[in-house]
Amino acid sequence: MIIVLKPGATKEQADELLAKIDAKGLKSLYMPGTERTVLGALGDERVLAELNFESHPLVESVKPILAEYKLVSREMHAHDTVVSIGKHAIGGGKFMVVAGPCAVETAEQMRDTCGAVKKAGAHALRGGAYKPRTSPYAFQGLGVEGLKLLRKTGDELGLPVVTEILEVADVETVAQYADALQVGARNMQNFRLLTALGKCGKPVLLKRGMSATVKDLLLAAEYILANGNEQVILCERGIRTFETSTRNTLDLNAVPYMKQKSHLPVLVDPSHGTGVRDLVAPMARAAAACGADGIMIEVHRNPVEAWSDGAQSLFPPQFEALMKSLRPIVEALGKTL
Amino acid sequence: MIIVLKPGATKEQADELLAKIDAKGLKSLYMPGTERTVLGALGDERVLAELNFESHPLVESVKPILAEYKLVSREMHAHDTVVSIGKHAIGGGKFMVVAGPCAVETAEQMRDTCGAVKKAGAHALRGGAYKPRTSPYAFQGLGVEGLKLLRKTGDELGLPVVTEILEVADVETVAQYADALQVGARNMQNFRLLTALGKCGKPVLLKRGMSATVKDLLLAAEYILANGNEQVILCERGIRTFETSTRNTLDLNAVPYMKQKSHLPVLVDPSHGTGVRDLVAPMARAAAACGADGIMIEVHRNPVEAWSDGAQSLFPPQFEALMKSLRPIVEALGKTL
Amino acid sequence: MIIVLKPGATKEQADELLAKIDAKGLKSLYMPGTERTVLGALGDERVLAELNFESHPLVESVKPILAEYKLVSREMHAHDTVVSIGKHAIGGGKFMVVAGPCAVETAEQMRDTCGAVKKAGAHALRGGAYKPRTSPYAFQGLGVEGLKLLRKTGDELGLPVVTEILEVADVETVAQYADALQVGARNMQNFRLLTALGKCGKPVLLKRGMSATVKDLLLAAEYILANGNEQVILCERGIRTFETSTRNTLDLNAVPYMKQKSHLPVLVDPSHGTGVRDLVAPMARAAAACGADGIMIEVHRNPVEAWSDGAQSLFPPQFEALMKSLRPIVEALGKTL
Amino acid sequence: MIIVLKPGATKEQADELLAKIDAKGLKSLYMPGTERTVLGALGDERVLAELNFESHPLVESVKPILAEYKLVSREMHAHDTVVSIGKHAIGGGKFMVVAGPCAVETAEQMRDTCGAVKKAGAHALRGGAYKPRTSPYAFQGLGVEGLKLLRKTGDELGLPVVTEILEVADVETVAQYADALQVGARNMQNFRLLTALGKCGKPVLLKRGMSATVKDLLLAAEYILANGNEQVILCERGIRTFETSTRNTLDLNAVPYMKQKSHLPVLVDPSHGTGVRDLVAPMARAAAACGADGIMIEVHRNPVEAWSDGAQSLFPPQFEALMKSLRPIVEALGKTL
Repeated sequence: MIIVLKPGATKEQADELLAKIDAKGLKSLYMPGTERTVLGALGDERVLAELNFESHPLVESVKPILAEYKLVSREMHAHDTVVSIGKHAIGGGKFMVVAGPCAVETAEQMRDTCGAVKKAGAHALRGGAYKPRTSPYAFQGLGVEGLKLLRKTGDELGLPVVTEILEVADVETVAQYADALQVGARNMQNFRLLTALGKCGKPVLLKRGMSATVKDLLLAAEYILANGNEQVILCERGIRTFETSTRNTLDLNAVPYMKQKSHLPVLVDPSHGTGVRDLVAPMARAAAACGADGIMIEVHRNPVEAWSDGAQSLFPPQFEALMKSLRPIVEALGKTL
Repeated sequence: MIIVLKPGATKEQADELLAKIDAKGLKSLYMPGTERTVLGALGDERVLAELNFESHPLVESVKPILAEYKLVSREMHAHDTVVSIGKHAIGGGKFMVVAGPCAVETAEQMRDTCGAVKKAGAHALRGGAYKPRTSPYAFQGLGVEGLKLLRKTGDELGLPVVTEILEVADVETVAQYADALQVGARNMQNFRLLTALGKCGKPVLLKRGMSATVKDLLLAAEYILANGNEQVILCERGIRTFETSTRNTLDLNAVPYMKQKSHLPVLVDPSHGTGVRDLVAPMARAAAACGADGIMIEVHRNPVEAWSDGAQSLFPPQFEALMKSLRPIVEALGKTL
Repeated sequence: MIIVLKPGATKEQADELLAKIDAKGLKSLYMPGTERTVLGALGDERVLAELNFESHPLVESVKPILAEYKLVSREMHAHDTVVSIGKHAIGGGKFMVVAGPCAVETAEQMRDTCGAVKKAGAHALRGGAYKPRTSPYAFQGLGVEGLKLLRKTGDELGLPVVTEILEVADVETVAQYADALQVGARNMQNFRLLTALGKCGKPVLLKRGMSATVKDLLLAAEYILANGNEQVILCERGIRTFETSTRNTLDLNAVPYMKQKSHLPVLVDPSHGTGVRDLVAPMARAAAACGADGIMIEVHRNPVEAWSDGAQSLFPPQFEALMKSLRPIVEALGKTL
Repeated sequence: MIIVLKPGATKEQADELLAKIDAKGLKSLYMPGTERTVLGALGDERVLAELNFESHPLVESVKPILAEYKLVSREMHAHDTVVSIGKHAIGGGKFMVVAGPCAVETAEQMRDTCGAVKKAGAHALRGGAYKPRTSPYAFQGLGVEGLKLLRKTGDELGLPVVTEILEVADVETVAQYADALQVGARNMQNFRLLTALGKCGKPVLLKRGMSATVKDLLLAAEYILANGNEQVILCERGIRTFETSTRNTLDLNAVPYMKQKSHLPVLVDPSHGTGVRDLVAPMARAAAACGADGIMIEVHRNPVEAWSDGAQSLFPPQFEALMKSLRPIVEALGKTL
């Protein structure tokens, strides 16, 4: 950590701060300059944070040297983590496609939609039973009935299932029905939920919040790992920017960046990342090309009748065409689809 | 709702959509133009949302006419709602100042800090017992012990207390100790929590999320009102933008905008809205000047030793000076401090 | 155009606005609803803009039906425009790679860098002679000497050259030396410059501004076409968002969106779009995969010694590896490299 | 400047960089830590920038200690700069109100509008003769005829006039007619124009770009000062964010921040900062309350007939009411209106 003092800070005042650094068992450095005095504190930045130097009236700015996340960092764990959802793997050369409807609606909708995505080559099914909705007047999901329908569909098709978890109180129930638990963008910093998922024994698919930096996402994943669960998949799903022609701005820069900084697999959700049906397939291909380990795609047997997110859901033939177009790109990257 | 069809849509295709509008008991309109056909659907837009027209392959865009929020709207409720926290009121001409430390730390810290803010004229105390923190290695709050200390301090000083609630499971406990429950920015779209707070019987201070539009905030408040609780205070606390010289960008435009669109009182938190101690007082004055009904300020007896948010906490004499400088502005706006 | 009136507007007041619509020779519509009266005005929205309805105290909101751009729109011109830079084409199935240093520095730097990029397969050279720099103390480019060096290098290698134009006064000079003129992000809304480039007789590479929406970019291109020049290449180069781990957020969503809405070719600049050397190649591949017609890449014979943008410039062997990895992706998209 | 090396960098490699620092005549520091080696370079950061360390493959990150701007900094110039526009001053306790129409339209419109704003107490007139417009089909200003009308109106009313300058070629002409030259948001980083204005001998009103950080704005002002002109007024006019209920997000945090970091006066433009007539007066009051030295307000004798920006222009009686409500706030801040 580098501590820049305000102009006019004296040697005595600097000494007082240096003594605090030493008292924490860290290495302190004193660097007087012509315009500013700079102090250094080398060691575990988690300890340094306790020193709370940014609160000090004499301190102009504090600059960290190391990232605040540790367990998710590639420095601590050089090789790719491979996460298994049911019998399928993501990471380490295996490209995974998760597909299905936004929400579980009816047995027929699940059977038709999921049958179609399996036939086209999807490895896992998605479908929401608990839906966080901006408006209180919108469809909020079928709840436990939805979980049961999703499980039944997965069992019949022989595919693992992924579904969203909204609250600590539901962790046990959702973990009973799902092969992986998804944390939505709005819950990415629900730290109680992250802590509970650290202990749930199932893989966690963690979506980036709409205004979360990549560092925020990695720190959110750190909560899950720090509580004992290393089976975490990071998911880029678009951030909120000034651009309004798309629902979100899919930040694919984050994919190679996170692959470099972290050992965790990275999934991309171009359905939410664009919000526009016609843009989903091109951006799914872009995700594969920049090094993502998988994609998650919303498909509906008839998006016109979808109870939510119809505008970004693919028709089954569109999903089938996407799967065909993905193969040469995934293989060009040295991965298997 | 206005529905713009894609170029080439036929009269027959338009008729199919018009029939769906009529079937919902709404008034439909057909407007053929030279370049686009436009349909209209007039009536309750909550019903219209179910038509899911944005999913239709023939639809280019859907433009709402009315806001999706109803109960929070000034159209439904022309007069200012006044919310009482303990014996103090906010809204309808009463300007409220909530002040205190970021987090409850110790009995001495609470006594000294809260004693000082009371002396300077604060109407209510703040202090977090449950702290959502970006890093799992940061101080997470004292929990129930913190709630008890806060309550005790409030009782001794004769001031009501406000504190943050993180999870549905804690609602009953927090409501037992606090006079108002605060929903933090990261939980603004925790819809389960909002629903529970609709039934908790206590005032709710709802903070705007870092990437929430004003419309998102009003819809989040709508969840609370739709579940039976009209005692809601909207809180602007800064949004996330590209600007990095301040922690957040305080969006004061939102204050007169929300006062115009909604009957609920609006509070401003310049401590989080700036993240910089020296900017807190000027922005508190700006909040009063643009029509806010109150402010919430972080103060610590010694910010250098604060366990969290020290960099944005005022020293007690700074808070005292702020209170003095606020008075002429609040009075110029025709309110009482 | 749809005009939503404020609550309480009377039939007489609506009639006054309807008369203005009719007076412009447009088709007017009157749609009274229970909560709002809505007016329609169908026809050329450029004429409608003159009615200035959003200024009217009785008008709540104005919603356009058609895009404001016309000449750049695919509706006006269904087939892909192919732009030729020297003997190479971009658009219509031809993928173009423009590469070279950020700035022209010396004859040796140009010879070594450009020789390397030609050998690796680049189709055109880039190099700045006029550099817009955030700080007045940074290197501002060699000016005309730089233009001459760039031209000489291109002639020796038999490759066309692209360079940035800053000001109307330089158009003639730059057009004399360059095969295509580049408008930088900071000048995207320098409307005088756009107007002059509409008359310059050379292809224009128009970069998206840091805070420009896709619609803003298309309207900026409209200035060039409206002034007589159809040889325009749109360039996505990243927008400014809250994310700080990369220099900009490369908005690849914009690529398929613009390909759908416009007939102009779309180039991607992943060097500025990421600002980080290690992310350039993955994002160049992503650009190809989502349908871009080409990429522009900063390469330097030794980025450590580059006078500007060294942190995002590739070493020549990195560029060579990128070119190899691009081929299967470009071909999978049905284009030729 | 602090240079953090990548993990694994050796002492020899560090020595090579340290030698480069010493060779520039700066003070170098070597700080080996357990996880990273950190180097320091103390001295003029303008010289340090030439070292281009961020391009080096061994360098993980570079952190500046000092701001890149110098001449605009309060450290170089402790007292407030007072800028005079005609006989009126801004800065140093004098609050200035600039008002008038968005664009100069006709002699009658100027006479009526400017007469009204003078009567209400404005100190200077505004009015655009050259209008930068997003669409090529919108009104682009009257040009020199507009400048003459503005000058004539100012002379008749005895008030100084401010108008926008778009291009280097126009500097001499605009300087002939105007008392202060305004650089619009889209031109904030038109460095050629800034350089020319450094030599024009008239005060410059520099507006913040829509995606410019405060640091970018201060560096843009540095261009003007570095070229010889200290008569610069900084203007906050809103930034582009995800919020769409207002045209821009007025970043008032920037006002006290810039007053602290710079000696230049700060003006606020709530007309563009909100884009909504009803929000202009509240935000003008907020600007005064947080320490701005003045405001710039769009007023039109009849906004319904304005040729541009009518939706954000005040009716004359609204401006008169605003002036009355400003006085107690300006005086509470210890300034004179």
